[in-house]
Amino acid sequence: MRGTVLYSPGDVRFEDQEDPRIQAPTDAIIRTSATCVCRSDLWPYRGLQPINGPTPMGHEYCGVVEEVGRDVKSVQPGQFVVGSFATSDNTCPNCRYGYQSSCVHREFMNRAQAPMLRVPLADGTLVATADHPPADLVPSLLATSDVLGTGWFAADAASVKPGATVVVVGDGAVGLLGVLSARQMGAERIIAMSRHEARQRLAREFGATDIVAERGDEGVQRILDMTQGIGADSVLECVGTQQSMMQAIHCTRRGGHVSYVGVPHEVELHGTELFYSHVHLHGGPAPVRRYLPLLIDLVLQGKINPGKVFDLVLPLEQVAAGYRAMDERRAIKVLLQP
Amino acid sequence: MRGTVLYSPGDVRFEDQEDPRIQAPTDAIIRTSATCVCRSDLWPYRGLQPINGPTPMGHEYCGVVEEVGRDVKSVQPGQFVVGSFATSDNTCPNCRYGYQSSCVHREFMNRAQAPMLRVPLADGTLVATADHPPADLVPSLLATSDVLGTGWFAADAASVKPGATVVVVGDGAVGLLGVLSARQMGAERIIAMSRHEARQRLAREFGATDIVAERGDEGVQRILDMTQGIGADSVLECVGTQQSMMQAIHCTRRGGHVSYVGVPHEVELHGTELFYSHVHLHGGPAPVRRYLPLLIDLVLQGKINPGKVFDLVLPLEQVAAGYRAMDERRAIKVLLQP
Repeated sequence: MRGTVLYSPGDVRFEDQEDPRIQAPTDAIIRTSATCVCRSDLWPYRGLQPINGPTPMGHEYCGVVEEVGRDVKSVQPGQFVVGSFATSDNTCPNCRYGYQSSCVHREFMNRAQAPMLRVPLADGTLVATADHPPADLVPSLLATSDVLGTGWFAADAASVKPGATVVVVGDGAVGLLGVLSARQMGAERIIAMSRHEARQRLAREFGATDIVAERGDEGVQRILDMTQGIGADSVLECVGTQQSMMQAIHCTRRGGHVSYVGVPHEVELHGTELFYSHVHLHGGPAPVRRYLPLLIDLVLQGKINPGKVFDLVLPLEQVAAGYRAMDERRAIKVLLQP
Repeated sequence: MRGTVLYSPGDVRFEDQEDPRIQAPTDAIIRTSATCVCRSDLWPYRGLQPINGPTPMGHEYCGVVEEVGRDVKSVQPGQFVVGSFATSDNTCPNCRYGYQSSCVHREFMNRAQAPMLRVPLADGTLVATADHPPADLVPSLLATSDVLGTGWFAADAASVKPGATVVVVGDGAVGLLGVLSARQMGAERIIAMSRHEARQRLAREFGATDIVAERGDEGVQRILDMTQGIGADSVLECVGTQQSMMQAIHCTRRGGHVSYVGVPHEVELHGTELFYSHVHLHGGPAPVRRYLPLLIDLVLQGKINPGKVFDLVLPLEQVAAGYRAMDERRAIKVLLQP
């Protein structure tokens, strides 16, 4: 088969690779129905995160099980499955507390931008649907694998409650699905910080009640003006830079909640400032596996349509064009069809 | 009257001052029944926090109301009162959310190491008892004013739940009362990190089930060994240094809670490390006013005896000796009697 490999910044290739095969009795092999490019893929693509030689890419996936190792019990060949970008045994103490993305046996997936994929710890990582879903739901099911699961965790970690005022910093796919998640959790006012018209439109479609185009101190001032000077109850930081993190903290009311779900890049939090901000802070790699059953249900019931974040669909072999489109912000998120 | 003034590191004087008087209609004047030295007073005393010229000291107090401004409604002359180290109107949005120490009208108290004290925003800051308390309860009531309120907030902010495993980093008076608070909240296992025998003893008396004398990486390893390798549910950081903060974070299980209640001094949190730690982080100046009614009740009902942290009692005029005793760690906490 052919799969996606990043050679150096800007150099993504779709090239011959060995077919994946069962390596451990807990593995499964799946035939991917759809995969996609994650904004986190852009950090190494842009040279902002070092790589050690050619690196297989992709960690978002759904598809049909081809083969399972002899210890796999909960999924079987022929089933349609979605999995998390982080593998988990779903039985260790961290998993039982709902932090499957910190499973003691965690591996971060890669190689998913390919037609076939080996998934370790299949029982604890994959969730099967009862039937094969209709094709038009595949993008939304793919979204649950990371980008929706991460947006959902952002809202959950920011403790979004019914009636709350919520701010979302970042208008990438995760931020937009943070808006959708906050709406599902009953937030009354959802302020999306975005300066791009297409993204603003999608934010509104997902449930944003207000748009703030300003950033930094100006953006913070706008949020304070909109909240009687005290800030929002819950703020979702969906970017991962120093500026976005400080913007999020400064938008939050005392005692409010800030979540952060993108790997922070060169972010340093000053203890004294954080102390007087009086916020709750929680984040990390989203424990997508915790949410998968719920999110898959919401998609299958037609209650949410997170697949709308995919505004460009390409054949998998054109993956390099997909990276370029996202790098140049011509696409919010690119779906790849094997 | 005479009051306490810090002139420069190590130079504390008890010297003539003007008697306090009502300045705003929301003020009260109280005659202090007891006051004390806070470990946070030691930062400037040790020259680790700059001061701008001679600085009146003291922010923990209880006493009898002498006089109130014309707008004060909830306390009256003759009543015994306890107040928070932070003033609050108790009506602004931050106060209503329970973050009175971030009241939009907050002032941090000072001048409390004196026989008389002006308390701004008396209605929102002070809590009166029904009767004058017996003298033997005064130390415990004084403790509610800051050190217990802060230890209680540490436990609350670390989300201590019945049955939880809790670690307390720091064996100062706040840490020790963090132990007491965690016990009151139903923690099952409370591990106090302390290498001082007298403090270990008091920690056990307050409810610690285990003592760990090691610090830093060694201390973290001991905690991991005691918790199946995953860390504690709730960790109270009661010191405020980089080492203690990292020790606290590394002792916490994924998805667990870290609180921090002492002003951090030169603490920087690295975003990526915090991200993968997967902890909840919450702290800040303790909203003591939120807890005062409950804590005063617990003291008056004899359910807790936080006053035991005062292991040295001095006449107020010997305040300088009190600072020395705490600086040299000869005393856990010094009570001053006017």
